[in-house]
Amino acid sequence: MGKSPSRAAAFRDSAEVRKGAKQPDGPEPDRGTLVTPSAEFPPLDPEERAALGRIGERWRVPRRPDELPVDPTLGRSRRGPAPSRFGRLTPIDLFTVEEPGELCATGPAHEPGSRTGRALARVRRTLFGPPLSSSAVIYERMRKLVALPILSSDLLSSVAYGPEALIAVLVLAGTSALGLSLPLAALLVVLMIAVGVSYRQTIPAYPHGAGSYIVARDNLGTTAGLMAAAGLMLDYVLTVSVSIAAGVSAITSALPAFTPATVLLGVLVIAVLLAGNLRGVRTAGNIFVLPTYAFVAAILALLLVGYARAAGRGFAPVSPPPVPATEGLGLLLVLRAFSSGAVSMTGIEAVSNAIPAFRPTEWRNARTTLGWMVGMLVVLFAGLIGLIHLNGLVPRPDQTILSQLGRVAFPTGPWYALLQATTALILLLAANTAFNDFPRLLFFMARNGHAPRRFLHLGDRLSFNNGLVALALAAALIFVAFGGHTASLIPLYAVGVFLAFTLSQAGMVVHWRRHRDRGWRRKLVLNAVGATLSGLVLLIAAVGKFAQGAWLVVIAVPALVLLANRIHRHYAALHQALALHPPSAEPVTPAGPRPPAGSAEGEELPQEVRHLVIVPVARLNRASLRALAYAASLGQPTLAVHIAPEDAEADRFREQWQAWGDHLRLETIVSPYRAVIGPLAHYLEALHTTRPELTLTVIVPEVVLRHRWHRLLHSRAEQRLRAALRALPGVVVTSVPVHVAE
Amino acid sequence: MGKSPSRAAAFRDSAEVRKGAKQPDGPEPDRGTLVTPSAEFPPLDPEERAALGRIGERWRVPRRPDELPVDPTLGRSRRGPAPSRFGRLTPIDLFTVEEPGELCATGPAHEPGSRTGRALARVRRTLFGPPLSSSAVIYERMRKLVALPILSSDLLSSVAYGPEALIAVLVLAGTSALGLSLPLAALLVVLMIAVGVSYRQTIPAYPHGAGSYIVARDNLGTTAGLMAAAGLMLDYVLTVSVSIAAGVSAITSALPAFTPATVLLGVLVIAVLLAGNLRGVRTAGNIFVLPTYAFVAAILALLLVGYARAAGRGFAPVSPPPVPATEGLGLLLVLRAFSSGAVSMTGIEAVSNAIPAFRPTEWRNARTTLGWMVGMLVVLFAGLIGLIHLNGLVPRPDQTILSQLGRVAFPTGPWYALLQATTALILLLAANTAFNDFPRLLFFMARNGHAPRRFLHLGDRLSFNNGLVALALAAALIFVAFGGHTASLIPLYAVGVFLAFTLSQAGMVVHWRRHRDRGWRRKLVLNAVGATLSGLVLLIAAVGKFAQGAWLVVIAVPALVLLANRIHRHYAALHQALALHPPSAEPVTPAGPRPPAGSAEGEELPQEVRHLVIVPVARLNRASLRALAYAASLGQPTLAVHIAPEDAEADRFREQWQAWGDHLRLETIVSPYRAVIGPLAHYLEALHTTRPELTLTVIVPEVVLRHRWHRLLHSRAEQRLRAALRALPGVVVTSVPVHVAE
Repeated sequence: MGKSPSRAAAFRDSAEVRKGAKQPDGPEPDRGTLVTPSAEFPPLDPEERAALGRIGERWRVPRRPDELPVDPTLGRSRRGPAPSRFGRLTPIDLFTVEEPGELCATGPAHEPGSRTGRALARVRRTLFGPPLSSSAVIYERMRKLVALPILSSDLLSSVAYGPEALIAVLVLAGTSALGLSLPLAALLVVLMIAVGVSYRQTIPAYPHGAGSYIVARDNLGTTAGLMAAAGLMLDYVLTVSVSIAAGVSAITSALPAFTPATVLLGVLVIAVLLAGNLRGVRTAGNIFVLPTYAFVAAILALLLVGYARAAGRGFAPVSPPPVPATEGLGLLLVLRAFSSGAVSMTGIEAVSNAIPAFRPTEWRNARTTLGWMVGMLVVLFAGLIGLIHLNGLVPRPDQTILSQLGRVAFPTGPWYALLQATTALILLLAANTAFNDFPRLLFFMARNGHAPRRFLHLGDRLSFNNGLVALALAAALIFVAFGGHTASLIPLYAVGVFLAFTLSQAGMVVHWRRHRDRGWRRKLVLNAVGATLSGLVLLIAAVGKFAQGAWLVVIAVPALVLLANRIHRHYAALHQALALHPPSAEPVTPAGPRPPAGSAEGEELPQEVRHLVIVPVARLNRASLRALAYAASLGQPTLAVHIAPEDAEADRFREQWQAWGDHLRLETIVSPYRAVIGPLAHYLEALHTTRPELTLTVIVPEVVLRHRWHRLLHSRAEQRLRAALRALPGVVVTSVPVHVAE
Repeated sequence: MGKSPSRAAAFRDSAEVRKGAKQPDGPEPDRGTLVTPSAEFPPLDPEERAALGRIGERWRVPRRPDELPVDPTLGRSRRGPAPSRFGRLTPIDLFTVEEPGELCATGPAHEPGSRTGRALARVRRTLFGPPLSSSAVIYERMRKLVALPILSSDLLSSVAYGPEALIAVLVLAGTSALGLSLPLAALLVVLMIAVGVSYRQTIPAYPHGAGSYIVARDNLGTTAGLMAAAGLMLDYVLTVSVSIAAGVSAITSALPAFTPATVLLGVLVIAVLLAGNLRGVRTAGNIFVLPTYAFVAAILALLLVGYARAAGRGFAPVSPPPVPATEGLGLLLVLRAFSSGAVSMTGIEAVSNAIPAFRPTEWRNARTTLGWMVGMLVVLFAGLIGLIHLNGLVPRPDQTILSQLGRVAFPTGPWYALLQATTALILLLAANTAFNDFPRLLFFMARNGHAPRRFLHLGDRLSFNNGLVALALAAALIFVAFGGHTASLIPLYAVGVFLAFTLSQAGMVVHWRRHRDRGWRRKLVLNAVGATLSGLVLLIAAVGKFAQGAWLVVIAVPALVLLANRIHRHYAALHQALALHPPSAEPVTPAGPRPPAGSAEGEELPQEVRHLVIVPVARLNRASLRALAYAASLGQPTLAVHIAPEDAEADRFREQWQAWGDHLRLETIVSPYRAVIGPLAHYLEALHTTRPELTLTVIVPEVVLRHRWHRLLHSRAEQRLRAALRALPGVVVTSVPVHVAE
C-alpha cells in the first residue's frame, strides 16, 4: 500500500545519493533532493583532503604513547564487568562489534544517564514510539491511484474555502457585484490550466524533485531560490493555519455550540498533528486515500443534486439576499476578489516535490497524476462557483458557504453531516501536507547553509523534529493571533504561493533556454505564460490586499531572504576559518583566516604544542589535590596559582603548601578587591601575552553534587571561570570532576 | 567623627582576630564576631594538616617536568610585550610583585574581559563607586554622643508607630476601651526597663558582640541560636518594611497627594537604600546624628507644647469621637493591643551587636549608651501615650496619630512640617540599620555553615552584596504584598523580635549558671525576669495575633531553622567528603566517604594516575585536528572516536582517517538512531566500567564564536557532552578552544 510521499522520498539507498550527486542539471555539485542522515556530516572537498594528507605527513608525536590500556572494542575479552555505580545496565552490552574498529550502538545506548532524563525518555517513547534505526527506510513507491488522493488533499481541499474567499470580497460591493463571480471564476480556471500545464513540463525536467526552491535556485540563482523558499515557508505555515481554520469552521458550521472554542480546537489540532508527525505517521498514506475520495465524491454528489434542483426550476438563479455595499465596486476590489479566489490553487506544487515516490517511470506517472488533479480541481471549483451563483448564497458569519450549499442540497438525511465531516477531515489532512513539506524544505536550505544546521538532524523517529516543531509553533502563533478566522488569514496566503509559482516557472523558462531539448520553444512559451499569469496574480495579491495583511508577507519574504543570507555567510566564514590548509614550510603562515602568527591555536601538529599547565587552588582538599595530581601526572611544566583576598591569607596558604611538600611551583596572587575570577583570567591573559605560542591548560577541580538545590549553595567558580576564559586564545580548560555522594 | 558601627566593627587588625579566637567564652574555638575577607578560606584543621604532610611525602611525579617555559612573576625580565588580540591594556601591568612568589592584582585586573562585561562594570562603578581594597579598613571608634543617635534610630523611631499600633487594636472594642491604653503603657514601660536592664548585663559578658544569635548559640545550643537568628532575620526584613511603611505614611499624612503612590514610593526607597549600602555608605554615621537628635527634639517639643495646652485646661481629657465597637473587649483583644504596643521596643538589641565599635572601655561605654537609650524610649513612649489619651485621638486612615498630635500642638507655623520631616527621616534611617545588621547576621551564619557560603563574600565595596540584595528583595516583596500598609505589617513584627529577646536572655541565664562571676545570682535573676517577660510577650504576640498574620512567622521560624540545618548538613557532608585523610599503605582504602575501591577519583598522587585520552571527532577540520594534536602532545595513550549515523558515513570517515595518515587509533561507533551524545557517554561509561582505575580525559574542540546569535546556529555539542559526562566518575573533560573571527 502507499506510504506518505515525503517519507518515501526521504530515504533511498546511498547508490541513489551518488547518482543524485552526478545529476547534470545544477550549476554546483547537487546532492539531489534526497534526505540522508549523513547530511550532517558533509564530506571533505578534494582540496581539503589533499591538505589533510600533507598535514598528516608532518605529524610527529613527541613521546611515543604506550599501548592503549583498555580494549576499545569493549572487551570481547569478557572479564565479567561489575556494573558501575552510576549505571543501570552493564554498559558493555550496549554496543555490538560490527567490523574491526567499528562498534554499533544498540537501542539502550541512547538512553540518557540521569534519572529525570530517563523518565522523560520514557514519556517520549510512550507518546512518539521507540526510536527507529536509520536502516528502517521505506522503499515503497506509490501507484497513481494512491498517489492521487495523497498528493491532492492540499489542492482539492482548497475548494472548501477558495470560492467563499472570492465571493466574500465581491459582496463588499453589495449584492449586485456578485454577478462578477462567474467571469472571475472563468479567469481562474484559465489560470489553473496554465499553471497546471506549466508544472507538467517541469516534472520531466527535474525527475528527482521539482520543488520551486530547487528549480528557482538552479536557474535563477540563490536569491531567487531563497525568495521562492521564503514564499513556500510562509505558504506552508499558512496552509496549516488556513486549513485548520477552515476545518474548524466546517465543524462549527454543523455544530454551532463549538464556536466559542474555535481557537482552542485549532491549537489542539495543531498539537495532535505535531505529535503525529513527531511520531512519524508511517501509515499516513492510507489515512489519506479514503477521506480524499470521500470528499471528492461528496462534492460531486452536492453538485449533482444542486444542479438537478436548479434544472428543475429551469436554471433560474435565486436572487441573493440584499446586502448593503460597504465599498465601491472599483478595480482594486475586483482584483482582490480574484486573488482571494486564487488560493484555491494552493497545493498544486505537491506532485513536483514527490516525483521520486512514484513507481517507474516516475516522472511520467507524476505528470499523469498532476493532469488528473488539475482536472478535478477545475471541475469542483467551477461547479461550486456556478452552484453558489444559482442559489444566490452570500457568506454568513456563522456558516461556511459550502455548509449553506449542503443544507440547500441535502435538507434531510445524513448527507449534510457526511459532507461537513469529509470537508473537515480533508482540511486537516491538507494541513498535514505542510508538516511533510516544510521540514524537507528547511532540510534542503540547511544543507546549502541557508538555514540553521539543526534542521539537518533526523530525529529518533526518522522525522525532522526541529522543522516540525518550528512549523507547529509558527502556525499556532498565527492561528491564535488571527483568532482562527479563515477570512482574515486569506489575504496573507496568496502572495507567498504565487511568488513560489512565478519563480519556479520563470526558472523553467531559463532552463529551456539553456538546455534547448526537443520542442524547447513550445515548452518555453508555455512556462512563460504560466510565469506571467502567476506573476500577475502575485502582483494583484500583493497590491490589492496590501492593507488587508499582505504587507506582512511583503515584509517577511525579504526579511527571510536576508536572514538566510546572513546565516549562509556565517556558515561559509566558519567553514573557511576551519578549513584545512596545507602546512607551509615555515611554521608561521601569515595567510588570511588563520590565527595570528605564532599563536598556540594555529598548531595542528603535536610536536608544535608547547604546554604550560596551570592549576588554580583555592584551598587544599581532596578535590584540589586530585587536580594537582592529575596535572603533575601529565608530565608537563606545571604552575599552581592561589588567589588570596589579603596578605595574611596568602601567607597562611603558602605555609600549608610548604607543609604539603612544595611539590609544584606556586604563585599566589593577592586580590585586594576580593574578586577571584577576574584576576585569574587577567593573569592567564598576561601569561599568554608573554608567550603567545604556549598552550595554557587550566585544570579546575569540579565538585559534582548529587542534588540540584545544593548547587545554589556553591559559587560555581568552575563555570564562571570557564566563561571568563572563553574569550582567551590558547587557553584550554580541563575539569577534573570529584563526585561526592552528598 | 563617628562611622557606621557595623562597618567599624567589621574590620579590625588580624591581631584582634587571633585574640578573638582565644576568647574563653564560647564552647567551640570562636572566631569572634569579626568580619574578615579571609572567612571564605577557612584554615585547615590540625588533623587535615597532618594528613596533607603525609600525602605530600608519597608524592612522586612520573616524569620530571621541564622548567616553566614562562616567568610566572610576569617578566620582570621585561621583553616589551605585544598587547594581545583580546586585551585592551598590556595585561602584564595589571600585577605588581609583592614578594617572591606573590603578585598583587591592581584595580584594572578586576575588569571583566568581554565588552558587555566592561560596560556593565562601568555602570556599576558609576552607581556604586570604584572597588575598595581590603586594606581600606576603618579603625575609628565612636564616642557615646555619636553612638547614641546611630544606634538608637531604630529603637526611637519605633515610637512613631508603636503607640498607634496599640491604640489601633484597642479602638476595635469601641471608644470606651481606649482608657485601657494607660495601664497597658505602664506595663510596657515595665517591660522596656526589664529588657533594658537584662541587656545591660549581657554587654559586659560578651564584650566582642552580644547578638542574640551568638548568645543563644553559645549557651543554649545550635537550634536555639538558629531560632534566634531566624527571629532576627524576620525582624530585620520587617524593620525595613515597617519603618518604610511608617515613613511613607508620615509623608502622605502631610502631603495626601502622594497617597496613591505609597507602594511605588516604598519600593523606590528600598532601592535607594540598597544602592547606598551597595556603595557602602562610609559616612553613614554622620547622616544619623542630626536626624535622630532632631527627631527626639521634635517629639520632646511636641510633648512640651501638648502637655502645656492640656495643663491650660486642667488636664481634662478631650473625649474621643464615638467609634462603634467591631469586636468585644475580650482578653485576647487586650493581649493583642499589648503585643502591638511592644513593637516600640524593636531595635533595642542594636547596641549589643555594636560593642566593639565603642571607644575603650568598650563594654562600659556601650552599657551607658544603652541606659540612655532605654531612658529616652520610656520618656517618649509614655509621654506620647499620655498625650494621645488627653487629646482623645483615634487612628484615622488618612493620617497617623503622630501627625494628628502634631496638627493639634502646632496648628500654625513650620513646626508641624518639621515634625513630619524628622519622623520620615528617622524611619528611613531605621530601615538602614537593618541593612547593616542583616548581612552581618548571615555572615556569621554562613561562617558556621548555616547559610549559603556566598554570604561570606565581601563585595568590591567591602559590603556584603549578597546579603544586602537578599534583604532588599525580601523587604520589597513583603512591602508590596501588604500594600505598604503599616497596620497590616505590625502583627508579623513582634513575634520575631521577642523570640530573639527571649532566647538571648534565656541564654544569659544559662551563662550565669555556668560562669558564676561575682554577683551572678542577682544577674541571673534579672536576666530570668527579662527572659520571662519577653517570653510572655512572645506568647501573647504569637497567640493573640496568630490569625492576623503571626501564623506566617510561626511557620517561617521553624522552616528557616530546618533550612539552615539542611544547609549545614550539606556543607558538613561535603567537607567530610573532601577532607584529607592520611594515605594508607595499601592503595585501596575502603573507608567511608572515599569513592569505591580502585576508582580513578581516589588518586591523590600523580604516580597513581593512569591515563586514557579520548578525542571525539565529528569531522576533520582545523578544530578537530587541533584537538588531536593537543591530545597526542600529552604523550598519553590516545583513542579517537567517531560517531556515525550510518554505515556509509562511517566508511567514508575511516577512509579520510587513512588519508590523514592513521596516526591515532580510531574507533567508529555507528549510531543507527542518529543520536551522538548518548552513545558517546555510554561508550565512555563502558570503558570506565572495564577499567575503573583509568582516568579518561575527553578532549573536545570548542569553536568559540564572536556573536551571541551565531550560537543559535550551532548544536553546542560540547556543552551537551559536558552535561552528559558530569555524572560519570573518573571522566575529565577538556575543551580545546578554537577562536574564529566570524
